[in-house]
Amino acid sequence: MSERIGTVPELRSAYRSGATTPVDQVERVLAGLAGRDGGPVWISTVPAAELRARAEELTRRHDPAALPLYGIPFAVKDNIDVAGMVTTAGCPDFGYRAAEDAPVVRRLRDAGALLVGKTNLDQFATGLTGSRSPYGSGESVFGGGLVSGGSSSGSAVAVAAGQVSFALGTDTAGSGRVPAALNGIVGLKPTRGLLSTAGVVPACRSLDCVSVFTTEVAGAVDVLHAARGVSPADPWGRALPARRASADVPATLRLGVPRPEDLDFFGDDGQADRFAIGVRRLSALVADALPVPLDDYFAAGDLLYQGPWVAERLVALGDFVRAHPGSVLPVTRAVLETGRRYDAVDAFRGQHRLRELRARVDRRWQEIDVLVVPTVGTTFTLDEIAEDPIGRNAVLGRYTQFANLLDLAAVTVPNGFTEGGRPASLTLIGPAFSDLTLARLAAALTTATEPTPVDAHPAGTGTVAAAVPGGGPVPSPAPAELLIAVVGRHLAGESRNGELTGHGATLVGAARTAPLYRLYRMDTPDDEGLPGLVRAAPTGPPGLPIDVELWRLPTSAVGALLAGVPAPLSLGWVRLHDGRDVLGFLCEAYAVGPQVEDISATGGWRAWRRAARR
Amino acid sequence: MSERIGTVPELRSAYRSGATTPVDQVERVLAGLAGRDGGPVWISTVPAAELRARAEELTRRHDPAALPLYGIPFAVKDNIDVAGMVTTAGCPDFGYRAAEDAPVVRRLRDAGALLVGKTNLDQFATGLTGSRSPYGSGESVFGGGLVSGGSSSGSAVAVAAGQVSFALGTDTAGSGRVPAALNGIVGLKPTRGLLSTAGVVPACRSLDCVSVFTTEVAGAVDVLHAARGVSPADPWGRALPARRASADVPATLRLGVPRPEDLDFFGDDGQADRFAIGVRRLSALVADALPVPLDDYFAAGDLLYQGPWVAERLVALGDFVRAHPGSVLPVTRAVLETGRRYDAVDAFRGQHRLRELRARVDRRWQEIDVLVVPTVGTTFTLDEIAEDPIGRNAVLGRYTQFANLLDLAAVTVPNGFTEGGRPASLTLIGPAFSDLTLARLAAALTTATEPTPVDAHPAGTGTVAAAVPGGGPVPSPAPAELLIAVVGRHLAGESRNGELTGHGATLVGAARTAPLYRLYRMDTPDDEGLPGLVRAAPTGPPGLPIDVELWRLPTSAVGALLAGVPAPLSLGWVRLHDGRDVLGFLCEAYAVGPQVEDISATGGWRAWRRAARR
Repeated sequence: MSERIGTVPELRSAYRSGATTPVDQVERVLAGLAGRDGGPVWISTVPAAELRARAEELTRRHDPAALPLYGIPFAVKDNIDVAGMVTTAGCPDFGYRAAEDAPVVRRLRDAGALLVGKTNLDQFATGLTGSRSPYGSGESVFGGGLVSGGSSSGSAVAVAAGQVSFALGTDTAGSGRVPAALNGIVGLKPTRGLLSTAGVVPACRSLDCVSVFTTEVAGAVDVLHAARGVSPADPWGRALPARRASADVPATLRLGVPRPEDLDFFGDDGQADRFAIGVRRLSALVADALPVPLDDYFAAGDLLYQGPWVAERLVALGDFVRAHPGSVLPVTRAVLETGRRYDAVDAFRGQHRLRELRARVDRRWQEIDVLVVPTVGTTFTLDEIAEDPIGRNAVLGRYTQFANLLDLAAVTVPNGFTEGGRPASLTLIGPAFSDLTLARLAAALTTATEPTPVDAHPAGTGTVAAAVPGGGPVPSPAPAELLIAVVGRHLAGESRNGELTGHGATLVGAARTAPLYRLYRMDTPDDEGLPGLVRAAPTGPPGLPIDVELWRLPTSAVGALLAGVPAPLSLGWVRLHDGRDVLGFLCEAYAVGPQVEDISATGGWRAWRRAARR
Repeated sequence: MSERIGTVPELRSAYRSGATTPVDQVERVLAGLAGRDGGPVWISTVPAAELRARAEELTRRHDPAALPLYGIPFAVKDNIDVAGMVTTAGCPDFGYRAAEDAPVVRRLRDAGALLVGKTNLDQFATGLTGSRSPYGSGESVFGGGLVSGGSSSGSAVAVAAGQVSFALGTDTAGSGRVPAALNGIVGLKPTRGLLSTAGVVPACRSLDCVSVFTTEVAGAVDVLHAARGVSPADPWGRALPARRASADVPATLRLGVPRPEDLDFFGDDGQADRFAIGVRRLSALVADALPVPLDDYFAAGDLLYQGPWVAERLVALGDFVRAHPGSVLPVTRAVLETGRRYDAVDAFRGQHRLRELRARVDRRWQEIDVLVVPTVGTTFTLDEIAEDPIGRNAVLGRYTQFANLLDLAAVTVPNGFTEGGRPASLTLIGPAFSDLTLARLAAALTTATEPTPVDAHPAGTGTVAAAVPGGGPVPSPAPAELLIAVVGRHLAGESRNGELTGHGATLVGAARTAPLYRLYRMDTPDDEGLPGLVRAAPTGPPGLPIDVELWRLPTSAVGALLAGVPAPLSLGWVRLHDGRDVLGFLCEAYAVGPQVEDISATGGWRAWRRAARR
């Protein structure tokens, strides 16, 4: 009897509480595989003895709390190398036995995850239907002849059917999103390069991503964190910048919603209705929702199969296809061969066109933070795909195929069912490195009570408030620039003003503090003197207003500015005469003892100097 | 009688002191042009009446101090659009009258610079010799039949001959560096995209740069700052990130020096000797000098003419060349036609290869900050080039043609003369956005007494200590991470620790302050209490050591952290027991009056709480 394997958070908490062990769980996994054996989901599985041995080792030797994916069963799409197993890429004659794990697999195993096997796919990851494989056509877990979607068909079905907790797919044109949509699960298509594509059979190498399937968002983020990392051997790898790791909270986000005239559901009113409902639910979670034209996105997407990028698939596969035409499915061969139509001038012209489109799309991220699109406009049965395998494949890719060309991140989430019983799905899209922002919004959408991925993430690497026992408040996002009040050497024209301008500060204008401060002049070896602003203590002389200048400084430059300013100065908050609190240079009180000249009465550093000259 | 036009800094200071006016200077410019009229330097010049009218307007209406390039005469390579003038790109039949200034020209004119005319070039900017133009072959200012270098031949000669203070060139394979080398001047090839290539006839559009020629480094940096900017219409534009604007000081840099086995001077011992001398001089200015293999750089450079990138030139020019074969020089046509050999698969394969090479080169910037190479391995006469126009062109590009493919910045500076009287030259190379770092080192090399570009820069946008009359110290580069001492709510496990971890801080460990501080517990509405660390004043109770935790925080995150911490807390310097000063949260003394509980004697926040619980 097969039962559903738990989600990543469920299993983690069960392991940590001692309610189950990896040894128990692999028996459930093996039972589930047996129930589906021979189907089109798996191309190869890890031998039961090996799986049991690994589970025993984990159970015996490791602390559940010490490994972020301790004992979590997972599957890998069969275009990703696993040491000792054959990588077929959906083409038996292409298959080779991999000597090493792909880095992304290695990292997951090091994190304690249990590899169960390798899953079916559209041959060479070329296709979005799941029906282009000699290992069998994928059917959605919802049955009725509905296609599984592809190319990561087996990975999506294995997760949706509860055979594993998560699975790796790949995504060049939408292969990590379309099958998530058709099986009612989550598909995380990370920013290009975050998950290494070393050890992955290339489709379009410059666009390929490894993707993650789960049934809930939190687990996908856990897997992303465990699997990400830049390998020296992978020239396409990119690290998640630290500053984007503190993702925005949903309530601060601006959501882009496609203009009605850009939405095409191909006559599927049920999908149209579900999308409208999903957009309403999403809009309630964010700060603002704005209409966005999709023409640039679609124009970029068209370059993938109706443009020179098909030729990129031939870089790795062209020689094989030429040498073994009979080993390749006719539909796959027909698609790949179109790549031979283009010359190098076409390739560069296409890249220039993409650059123009991308520049326009990039500018749009100044107005919105997240774009929502339907994952697929409509769904098809296997029979419908067979009638028009290339045309209907293109329909499935309409809202997905632009993402990697435009260097975007995406998270696909279930969005209920149409009245006809077909699964509906949304995809949230953001600029490169917005992965965690998208995941937060996706988690908020999928369930109000589901823990956000950040809160749930065990390792906490790069995420907010996670590494701390006891948690803590998530810092509010800081503004990009801060106002800073300066009082002496940093004033325009003074000796240390270059430290402000050198860090990109611009002068806002003159201002005065609230009548709360004393200004001192400390002696310096150069006789220039160092002014010090100290908020008056209740026990001393009363505070006065002091002349300051306000400068606008990039928030990211505050640290570098402060690093060059020695004690007894510090950066704190200065109350202005108009009631605002702005950053400002303060002087520690210990440094302004009775022997230090109090120049408060002059009203400011420049006024004091004028007075002193007279 | 023609006289040399002053450099940018010379003219600026003469204008500001009132010693000369633009009206005076244009007469000198016009006299200089007359002396060279009909030569191969200029393709077209601005009519004298127009130049005089603009100079009169500047003189009459504008304050010399208000415009960063007030009255500075300059030339523009004739592949860059100037409104109302014909752009020939060195091919008369290709010529068109431009409706608008290229943005880079518009910005220079807005900054007060005086456009004198448009200069000769190797046709379609394809070539490094200066001899591929129907407008005449360029000869170096040093005469003796030495080639001027190209493709920006006229721009380099106009500057070297003192006809203008600066000139714009373009640089795809080295066209902004090779002619600088052959004419003994400075060539700044900025990071790709800093100077807009909108309104420039494309060579390889994805690689093209606008470059700057001057006789000294400071002026080139001034021009860079005045001309840079991202235009919405230009998809290739990139902004100079603020954080890189505060360039490293030379004495902190690590210099990469080519391994002897990678250096080829093509039998020119004079150039080899000069390069060794230049490296010695440079090495004395930097912190360290390390040997670097050049094989990856050369492999990347070979992709430009011996690989598919030639096809990129045909995107813009292919139709013209096919329609007007007789209008194109035979050598240029021969070069361009090789681009038709490649198909789109070759183009993508080449890009994959480049990505691998670039990933390796990028990693090398963790070990070195600047790479020095000879600008050219040897020099040629016009007769020598005529003997082998393509082979010897390739020799001239050996040390330049990889830079734009690898997304590098470069500054070329004179390096004396060989014993045979040929000019020698060095090129300093760094990663994208290292332009100002390179310029500082170049300025330090070219003259110890020459003001650094940063000090001399008038507008100061993005540069250090520059906007200030009177200048000021250049801030030392801040480290990427800072240590920060926390004492209370930011301790691990405490309520606000998430603000540290959320900004990427990692725990270093426990520490103690020097015995200089008092620790207070201020009341808060939540009864948790807010600890405040105050350095003891000489007049109060003596300071004690207080327990702190040290965290390592990205410098760029300090501002965002501080933005979330309210008064009376500030970030200043805390002296540790071991004598180090680290950043730390301090409390303004005014907030800890006599009514506030002094908990210093317990030794720290956690110790106090343990004591309070008992």
